[in-house]
Amino acid sequence: MTEPSFDAGFRETLRRLFEWRRDVRHFRRDPIPAGDVERLIGIACLSPSVGLSQPWRFVIVRDAARRHQIRANFESCNAAALTGYTGERAALYARLKLAGLDDAPEQLAVFADPVSTTGHGLGRRTMPETIEFSVVAAIHALMLAARAEGIGTGWLSILDPAALAISLDVPPAWVFIGYLCLGYPETPDDTPMLQRAGWEQRRPAAEFIYRR
Amino acid sequence: MTEPSFDAGFRETLRRLFEWRRDVRHFRRDPIPAGDVERLIGIACLSPSVGLSQPWRFVIVRDAARRHQIRANFESCNAAALTGYTGERAALYARLKLAGLDDAPEQLAVFADPVSTTGHGLGRRTMPETIEFSVVAAIHALMLAARAEGIGTGWLSILDPAALAISLDVPPAWVFIGYLCLGYPETPDDTPMLQRAGWEQRRPAAEFIYRR
Repeated sequence: MTEPSFDAGFRETLRRLFEWRRDVRHFRRDPIPAGDVERLIGIACLSPSVGLSQPWRFVIVRDAARRHQIRANFESCNAAALTGYTGERAALYARLKLAGLDDAPEQLAVFADPVSTTGHGLGRRTMPETIEFSVVAAIHALMLAARAEGIGTGWLSILDPAALAISLDVPPAWVFIGYLCLGYPETPDDTPMLQRAGWEQRRPAAEFIYRR
Repeated sequence: MTEPSFDAGFRETLRRLFEWRRDVRHFRRDPIPAGDVERLIGIACLSPSVGLSQPWRFVIVRDAARRHQIRANFESCNAAALTGYTGERAALYARLKLAGLDDAPEQLAVFADPVSTTGHGLGRRTMPETIEFSVVAAIHALMLAARAEGIGTGWLSILDPAALAISLDVPPAWVFIGYLCLGYPETPDDTPMLQRAGWEQRRPAAEFIYRR
């Protein structure tokens, strides 16, 4: 194939894609067109993976009973998390909407398969966690590709991974990486919800740069 | 700010960016313009992070003695990895060029800081590994933004994290995520080097989709 041209206009729009990708918790209930989730997974599979191991396992969750269990899993973990805060911080935590499970039309549980021999172990002898890292890159690619189509994603981690694996009846070796809600966001935004809510602020990039 | 328009042309070019992002091991020695690495880190900092914790710590490595130690670290780990293969697979492994450390003009060690209180612990009570995952998303964003500017990145994991942390004199709590080589690639490519070399093949996305 001919190398594509990534011109200044594309690079500027790409920058704005990074700025306007949001972790979405407020979804409209409109369905996503059939086949879109599978197509987005196809793009995610172009992501880097250690040793070309392709350890990503995408579980499209549509069964109402399973979704109900996952919602209960979140409610339980979120209630436990609230007990870790006191005073104003607890009040603020209680007001946050941290999951779009009730409204998001599509939901994806994403796992890593650490026992697959694909990739022949290359690159993970000293850092076996690169298997999980590869799946994170794929999720991030999916979030970006979705946002470019106007589809928002919310990455939920307030879950008990062991209970989730049982709810979804996946192989015991699989490692849970993240649960994604997908749908059209109520409002597009370029500011993180947690910043708008006063939970935390973005810091300047210079604070994160060190030199050796 | 006004919401940007991500039109069909942009989405198609974005897809080609995913296809043409490569893990680069063969670099030209031309320097990257001053300030480019810091600017790319700035884009990476727009990535999602659990609870807006922004746990990424980017160490720009330019000191020759430190780079020498890191190269020795890689050589040692790579030799040990080779002993894990036999026969034709070992011969193939020995032929692979797995690091661009000698030629890449810029090098970045990327860490996660799990003890920072930024984000107030939100989202990581049941999954503390989301701190590391956040840094992976930032690295992936950096790789994409770099590729759009014609700059290749190679993510090196064949390293002993403990020895690397000593070489770079970073806080003991930091968790090593990945070592990035940055520079202009010898040849642009849309096919993974490991596939061209016959190490592993890309599989169709459908193999990674499950339904529940």
